[in-house]
Amino acid sequence: MNFKTELTRKAKQVDQALQSFLPPEDAYPPLIHQAVRYSVLGGGKRLRPVLALASAEAVGGDTAIVLPAACSLEMIHAYSLIHDDLPAMDNDDFRRGRPTCHKAFGEAAAILAGDALLTLAFGTLAKSDGAAPECIIKVIGEVAFAAGTKGLIGGQVVDTLSSDEDTDVLTLEYIHSHKTGALYRAAARAGAILAGASHAQLAALTEYAEHLGMAFQIKDDMLDIEGDEKVIGKPVGSDQKNKKATYPALYGIAGAREKATQAARSALAALELFGGEADFLRSLVQYVINRDF
Amino acid sequence: MNFKTELTRKAKQVDQALQSFLPPEDAYPPLIHQAVRYSVLGGGKRLRPVLALASAEAVGGDTAIVLPAACSLEMIHAYSLIHDDLPAMDNDDFRRGRPTCHKAFGEAAAILAGDALLTLAFGTLAKSDGAAPECIIKVIGEVAFAAGTKGLIGGQVVDTLSSDEDTDVLTLEYIHSHKTGALYRAAARAGAILAGASHAQLAALTEYAEHLGMAFQIKDDMLDIEGDEKVIGKPVGSDQKNKKATYPALYGIAGAREKATQAARSALAALELFGGEADFLRSLVQYVINRDF
Repeated sequence: MNFKTELTRKAKQVDQALQSFLPPEDAYPPLIHQAVRYSVLGGGKRLRPVLALASAEAVGGDTAIVLPAACSLEMIHAYSLIHDDLPAMDNDDFRRGRPTCHKAFGEAAAILAGDALLTLAFGTLAKSDGAAPECIIKVIGEVAFAAGTKGLIGGQVVDTLSSDEDTDVLTLEYIHSHKTGALYRAAARAGAILAGASHAQLAALTEYAEHLGMAFQIKDDMLDIEGDEKVIGKPVGSDQKNKKATYPALYGIAGAREKATQAARSALAALELFGGEADFLRSLVQYVINRDF
Repeated sequence: MNFKTELTRKAKQVDQALQSFLPPEDAYPPLIHQAVRYSVLGGGKRLRPVLALASAEAVGGDTAIVLPAACSLEMIHAYSLIHDDLPAMDNDDFRRGRPTCHKAFGEAAAILAGDALLTLAFGTLAKSDGAAPECIIKVIGEVAFAAGTKGLIGGQVVDTLSSDEDTDVLTLEYIHSHKTGALYRAAARAGAILAGASHAQLAALTEYAEHLGMAFQIKDDMLDIEGDEKVIGKPVGSDQKNKKATYPALYGIAGAREKATQAARSALAALELFGGEADFLRSLVQYVINRDF
């Protein structure tokens, strides 16, 4: 397996499915559908949906069954970025090398586009087909939990509240494990559950995803300092500007790099019970900590 | 059956269930849970959840099975009010006799509280128990559709866009049938589907709910002109201030009243195939067009 080829193939599969799940741009009222498609289809690494597909494969499942759930996670990710970027939140003007949604479509449309994507995510989950109905309901419940106040939103609340003051290690870990970790975890679990994973497989993939999410977020923090603005598509130094809690701020660059390496090692260790069917997930770990965007 | 007693009983049942589905105020991070509970538990007529319960009863079903779905519709209604009230949208300061969510908790918390309620609505739907899993998934899909860009959000987009210009009858009907009608329709259908309605019963309740929603919205438009500020809990004349499309603006007060009466008559006619088990739904029509808040 060539990892890069396979990653591109999976991301393309996700993009095609997203195209079909998102209403066309000219569907009435067009403004909202333009804003939605602008935000979802304008780039992005598709790591959450790819993780869902790869988790299904690791347990011998059919990725077609997982596509709606995979796309729903990308929609939730896109909605959270739109709302995070709003003037009342992080007030960011650029994302993925283009104006943020509210800069391109106005604040009201951006609020509603985020709402629309969150809603569509659950509508798409309900279109899951081929898995046991009980499993689909379980996944909907888990995704709602991961996206809610004990997950993604909880992380965002603490992140927004703590921006103007010194942040300790526990708060930083809360923010990262909730704002990023929860959706990574839900992605792996959704793929595994819909593909019929055993308890042991599900537990292993859950642990893997938690460490992968942590590695991803530490790397994200580092790219905000070391990255190339043209490659990452947003201004470097925005975390510092917004006084965000980050790993490099608390541990220094070298300390943060060591933390990322540790998280990567733990992610790999969690895959011990799998054979070659988890090789893509293993390569994904290296990709996440070595990427430059 | 005494309608008022029964309405109070059902609303209380919904309030108790909401109390249990909403995280406690002190759950971490507390700010978001305070904002969520402030917005959902601070009044409201609970008409959508009551409609879901009464629709289940009309087809001989158990209302306990429908409670999670009923509460999810109230959460979606509450989220839509929070986001509609935001400065970038209608910029309203008062709702239900108290400061709006962003006035009480700040804009960032209000955006996130709306997001949290929308997310929790689907998590709560996934907790539906006692109905066939296929029916639960169908209801989740229908609620997502009703709350999405072809429903609630679509209505809000057109409403926001059309506020500053003259609105024709078709646009007004689009706004009302989407912004209000879609959730009424979803409420009746959710109750009926989870309670095992026949095709004919489901079709009849769907038609009933569409007319009821229309009657409700016309009455709402009229209360914004004729209502008592202290009773309705928000400033009278806010539609005119925001240049909103309304029935009285297009048809005059007498014309709007006639439209409401027509919608009420059509709602009652849709219930023809039901006997006494739909008496509550019949009284609900009168309540909706005669209410003073």
